[in-house]
Amino acid sequence: MADGPDLLGRTEELCAIASESRAEGRITDHLDALLAEGAPGLERTRVGDNLVARTDLGRPLRLVLAGHTDTVPANDNAVPRREGETLWGLGTADMKGGLAVMVELALAVSEPAVDVTYVFYAREEIAAKESGLEELFVERPDLLEGDVAILGEPTDGEVEAGCQGSLSVEVTLAGERAHPARPWMGRNAIHRLGDLLSFLAAHECRQPVIQGLQFREALQALTVTGGVATNVIPDTVTLMVNHRFAPDRTPEEAEAAVRELLAPFLEDTDVVTLIDSSPGAAPALDHPLLAALVDRSGLGVRAKLGWTDVARFAGRGVPAVNLGAGDSTLAHNKHERVEGDRLEVSYRALLDLISVGP
Amino acid sequence: MADGPDLLGRTEELCAIASESRAEGRITDHLDALLAEGAPGLERTRVGDNLVARTDLGRPLRLVLAGHTDTVPANDNAVPRREGETLWGLGTADMKGGLAVMVELALAVSEPAVDVTYVFYAREEIAAKESGLEELFVERPDLLEGDVAILGEPTDGEVEAGCQGSLSVEVTLAGERAHPARPWMGRNAIHRLGDLLSFLAAHECRQPVIQGLQFREALQALTVTGGVATNVIPDTVTLMVNHRFAPDRTPEEAEAAVRELLAPFLEDTDVVTLIDSSPGAAPALDHPLLAALVDRSGLGVRAKLGWTDVARFAGRGVPAVNLGAGDSTLAHNKHERVEGDRLEVSYRALLDLISVGP
Repeated sequence: MADGPDLLGRTEELCAIASESRAEGRITDHLDALLAEGAPGLERTRVGDNLVARTDLGRPLRLVLAGHTDTVPANDNAVPRREGETLWGLGTADMKGGLAVMVELALAVSEPAVDVTYVFYAREEIAAKESGLEELFVERPDLLEGDVAILGEPTDGEVEAGCQGSLSVEVTLAGERAHPARPWMGRNAIHRLGDLLSFLAAHECRQPVIQGLQFREALQALTVTGGVATNVIPDTVTLMVNHRFAPDRTPEEAEAAVRELLAPFLEDTDVVTLIDSSPGAAPALDHPLLAALVDRSGLGVRAKLGWTDVARFAGRGVPAVNLGAGDSTLAHNKHERVEGDRLEVSYRALLDLISVGP
Repeated sequence: MADGPDLLGRTEELCAIASESRAEGRITDHLDALLAEGAPGLERTRVGDNLVARTDLGRPLRLVLAGHTDTVPANDNAVPRREGETLWGLGTADMKGGLAVMVELALAVSEPAVDVTYVFYAREEIAAKESGLEELFVERPDLLEGDVAILGEPTDGEVEAGCQGSLSVEVTLAGERAHPARPWMGRNAIHRLGDLLSFLAAHECRQPVIQGLQFREALQALTVTGGVATNVIPDTVTLMVNHRFAPDRTPEEAEAAVRELLAPFLEDTDVVTLIDSSPGAAPALDHPLLAALVDRSGLGVRAKLGWTDVARFAGRGVPAVNLGAGDSTLAHNKHERVEGDRLEVSYRALLDLISVGP
């Protein structure tokens, strides 16, 4: 598009400003200044290192476009490097390409057909409890109100609808200590893990179809620790099991399902403890704004199997999807990069949506 | 025995001198002084915190009586406490009762029928490489020469003949990392442990009979560690497997047997590494001195399933057994204790052996 904005240039500009998690002050200042200069019609509010910029045109629908400003630590890729229509470097895909699309939409469209809220938030790449988006939901929920949210996480330019939930349990199996030369005097807790792990290895998880989208659950042991000393039959072993569940189940239902699967391998003295739990988000492609996005853009649609911040919106009753130009498999990878034409596709789809409405 | 030595009193005297591993100086001084005073015919040699006292009567056979002077750390039982014919406290069973028997034999018999070497050595309760007995074997092997060795470790007053060997291997299984929401993109190394652990749980080890004694091998996972992070399908898990093997196998044969058992669960990228290995000791009850001990004392005889310092003697061609009054199951336990009549039985058996010979 000869007359469009320089999306790759804007992405490079944003990537040149380091913003590892908890150090998003400078990039937020920069975004604030860009919008103050180029989009004076937006109401801008800074909350900590988060920035929210909103139109207030009294439109019947409001669309939230949200993206995080932080990156994971650099991995020999702190300085963005351009090669033709490809930009390499930390944050190009995850997700300063998405931020560039948001900025250019704000600068280009002062009178959208729907009210638009641009949310730039901090600390997405670290522990969920530090999330800048959560900070906004707690401090200023009014700023995040809207009918639909679209997040710019890398999705290879497809619409990723909904997301699966995630929960983790810690399974501790008991045994009885003994001397390794006389193991029959005790009971080896590590040996008791065998059948449980074989079950997990063979277990076929549910693959429900929801609103036409194929989800696929997972149940995986992620860490294991056991043993007392090198001269003791171990009386304890602890397995952390993570479950990704489709959004047709609540966290409570998913936890009950996990406990039921584990039960045949447990005895009275064993303990299963819920460590953390995050709800999924149902796809909401029947919402007029999302239906319009999918119909008119021609973009592919798929289920999001991982957990993302769309669940924070969905949990507050705001249907949300991810749509970003980056290659999701290259996020957090030293070969992270984004292509100019992919940014273009995202920009075009969103430009059409906010210009025309549902 | 009204006219015998006060074995329980001597044990109490030795228990009152603290001698946790690496702090055996005081008790060794005390033993040295006792022997200097009461057994002037013995040649005494101090090597570090080890003490060797020998007759040199030109007898055709030499018997080594050996015991360690150290204890594990106290567990609310540092001060010995006597109740009738029972002495409670740290070191009573493991093995100052045995030291008391050795001291009283040295004081009572100045002209034994066999030459006798009394060995009091340090640092048995900690890492094998710190062993005071090993220090003696390296520094002054001449002092430990003999035809048979009897160690005073607690054996409930029975003769424990030979001992099983011990080896440990570290088994590392490989996988491939992936996101926990897409585990099928990788391979879970922890899940791969399932079949191996189920095999170990069900495996029946060899129970060979050697010289009429029943041995019983063991193969046990003692520690397990696996996992990368709570958001990664793990690509590695490490299991430490310990094998106790009967003395009809060399460590090399035992290692080969373990590798053969593990092989069906391993792939090319998995690694099995030998961590440590100690040979067992064949029972040598056909030696005239040991045959005489068993025949004339009427003591029970059984195979030693754990590893003990008898293997250090056996490895140097000196047949060795354990014989001690203490209850082996109470060693390292806060309820450790020894009974006077059990000390008497050990003392009587050894008194007869060194007084009469084979």
